This record gives sequence, C-alpha cells and structure tokens, in this order.
Amino acid sequence: ELLEDATGKKLILVDHNEKEQRVNGKYEILEIIDHHKFDFSYPVPIFILNKPLGSTSTIIAEMFFEKNFEIPREIAGLLISGILSDTVIFKSPTTTERDKEIANKLNKIVGLELIKYGKEMKKKGANIEGLSIRDLIFRDFKEYNFNGKKVGIGQLELIETEEFLEKKNEIIEEMKKIKEDGFDSIIFAVTDIMKEGSTLFCVGENELVGKAFGVDFSSGYSYLQGIMSRKKQIVPPLEKIFS
Amino acid sequence: ELLEDATGKKLILVDHNEKEQRVNGKYEILEIIDHHKFDFSYPVPIFILNKPLGSTSTIIAEMFFEKNFEIPREIAGLLISGILSDTVIFKSPTTTERDKEIANKLNKIVGLELIKYGKEMKKKGANIEGLSIRDLIFRDFKEYNFNGKKVGIGQLELIETEEFLEKKNEIIEEMKKIKEDGFDSIIFAVTDIMKEGSTLFCVGENELVGKAFGVDFSSGYSYLQGIMSRKKQIVPPLEKIFS
Repeated sequence: ELLEDATGKKLILVDHNEKEQRVNGKYEILEIIDHHKFDFSYPVPIFILNKPLGSTSTIIAEMFFEKNFEIPREIAGLLISGILSDTVIFKSPTTTERDKEIANKLNKIVGLELIKYGKEMKKKGANIEGLSIRDLIFRDFKEYNFNGKKVGIGQLELIETEEFLEKKNEIIEEMKKIKEDGFDSIIFAVTDIMKEGSTLFCVGENELVGKAFGVDFSSGYSYLQGIMSRKKQIVPPLEKIFS
Repeated sequence: ELLEDATGKKLILVDHNEKEQRVNGKYEILEIIDHHKFDFSYPVPIFILNKPLGSTSTIIAEMFFEKNFEIPREIAGLLISGILSDTVIFKSPTTTERDKEIANKLNKIVGLELIKYGKEMKKKGANIEGLSIRDLIFRDFKEYNFNGKKVGIGQLELIETEEFLEKKNEIIEEMKKIKEDGFDSIIFAVTDIMKEGSTLFCVGENELVGKAFGVDFSSGYSYLQGIMSRKKQIVPPLEKIFS
C-alpha cells in the first residue's frame, strides 16, 4: 500500500534518506536505515544507521543477527530477495562481499538455490509482456541536469535481452518522441544481467555521449560490456563530458 | 593535538556531524559516529551510526561489545570518563538507561567507584583556580540568535558552587562588560552537579528572561532547581519567549 500523506504518523525511513524521495505531510521520523549517499537534517537526535553496502536488506539482516534475533523463514526470504534485487544477483558493481555473506547466511534459514531463484525473480519482475516500449523506457527513468543540459536516462534490466533488442528501430522512434518533451538527450540502457553488460541507446547528442563511453553512437546504440549501474557507470562519464 | 587543517586526511567524525563544527580543509569523511541531532550531506555512501543516547562513548562501547572485541582497561576507562562527563555523572536529562548500563559493563573491566570517580574527574576538569571570572564565563560560551536578538549563554559546571557564588557582584560586572560587545542579553548558568540545579545570571532583558523561566531576575540571578542542560532546558524556553 502506497502512503500518499503521512501526516501524524511515526516513520522509519528505509532506503531513502533524501528529502526529494520522502512522502508528503507532517510526520515524525523515528529512525533511518540506508545504504545511499546521505543528505539529511533533523532537529532532534534519532537513530541512524547507514552502511556503504549493496542493499539495505543486508543491513537489516545484520541487525537481526547482531541481536541474535530468530529470523522467520518468510522474512529471511524477503531479505534475500531484497539483496538479490538490489545487487542484480551479485553482479552490480555496488555489490560487496558482505552482501554475499549475509545472503548466504540468510539462506541457511530458507534453503534456496540463490542464483536460480534470483534469475526467476528478475524474470518475473522484468515481465515485459503486454507493456509498450514507452512503458519500458519509463519504467525506471530519471531526469538529470548536466551543466544546463536536460538528459533523461532510462534503464531496463532483463535476464536476457536478445528478444527485446529485435525492436531496435521501434525503441529509437519512441525515444525520439520522448526527447520532444524538452530533453537534449535521451539515453536508454537495456541491461543484460547474465551477460553483465548493457546496450545503450542514445537519441540527441550522440557524438558527445559516444565520446563519454568511447564508442560510436551514429547508429543510435552500442553494446557496452561491464556497464550495469546507471548511478556508478553511466551518470559519472556523462557528468564529465557535459561539464 | 588540535588539527587546524585536515586537507588530504581521512577522517572519522565523532560526536560532531554538523558542518559548523568541522575542521577546515578538503578531506575525506570515512565514518560518522554521533548522538546529536543530525545535519549532514555527503556525495558518496559512508558508514553512519547515530543514536539518541547520552554520550557517543556509549555508542562506541556498544560497538566494541557487539563485535566481542576485548576492550583494554585504558580504553574502557576513557569511555567511562566520556560517559560520565557527557551525562554529568548520569544527572543530565540527556542520560538514558543505556548509558548507565554500558558504563557499568565497562566498569567490570576497570573497577572504579563510578560516582566518586566522576566527581573527582569533574572537580579536576572544573579546576577554576587561577582563572578569571571572564575566563570562566567564556569557558563554555555559545552565541544564539533568537528572532534577531543576540544572546550569549555561558555555562560552568561545578561539583559544588557555594564558594564561586560568593562573587556574585563581580560575575554581574563582568557580564555587563561582555554585553557591551553587541549582545542584547548575556546569560550565565552556574550548574551545581550535586544539587542538580543551576544559578542563572542574566544581564540585559532580565524581565523577559525571567518570564521564560518563571522567576524574578531583578537582582540579576536566580537559582533554578533541576535545570542542568543548556541545550534541553535553557535554550528552548528562551527561543519561545523571544519568538
């Protein structure tokens, strides 16, 4: 259930300390547990735990283990799912050894084949049947302002991308339409989890964006082996080239 | 050793997350451990642990205990000293049960008479011999801006205050001189740790400040039983009356 207004409630902010991501209303913040960069201000002392790990689920599991709290099988399964999802089945560059360690420790309670389960989960999560290309570009889409340039970057994570990539022309056509809403460039990363790379589409300043990644975007797209994280691998080179 | 410029260093900020309190220079922040209200922003994920306890030393001791780390006697003694100092020997209203619990747990390593040791420490820390009244007013002095009014508040914590309070007239004379540096009011709290109260001196807007605490400041001072914390008990009523 999505909370539209939290007025009067007491909240624990999990995985989102930044103001822009918070729910509307006047509410009390009791605690924060997160693994992101930090941007937070509050007038009274509260409990905060932030760790540079791959998933907030890893931190929550650590808290259970530290307190010797018995973790119900269902909760352990949810925490494993959180870790596998956030770390893209341990393949995202944000993954740490601690995330793997904790997922395996949790799995002593659940008994899954972790990688197989992760793939099934991602497949279900990435269910793209019945969705338009526009929906998929916007499924995980963020707007950036690089030195005055408005750039939209969408990412779609799939277990395998071959079938989807047959529609390259339709994807580029749709991106052109989106660009018309005032963007200088639209970038769309179709990430192949198993291959550990992304096909990057670009509509707009293809030459400059190509330079950022050292590839040729004259056809509108290029495959980049090893590129999986928008935050860590796609945004920083763009910030640099647009500065 | 006081660090004047930390350029190029890697720092763990302990007990001071707020920007105004930080050392100068361009440095990397690795971790933050604190018990204050929080105001922090950083561009990459780091380890942060903030707990609403009476002392950061309590939090650090908890971390040692959680990791089953053997605490050397010297370190345990320092942590106890930190807790006793920050909680004014468990008498400050910022003290929590957890602070007492952890101090007692640490004391299994050290074996002190906690309260007696705390008093001795406070006596040595409060050593006021050879110091001028001006020095003592400024020993722990903060400037506040209450709705455009500039108010300076000093606090002096002593095990017992009788002897010092014989110099009431000199204290008020000195406060008048300080007020001339552009303050609307100067307040000076002489806190008696054993009595658990403070003699509050006021020079400036005595009537209004008196109202804030429900006492008469026409003589320039008044004893307030139970008032021990500037942050929690002196500043809030002043903020309210000046708003």
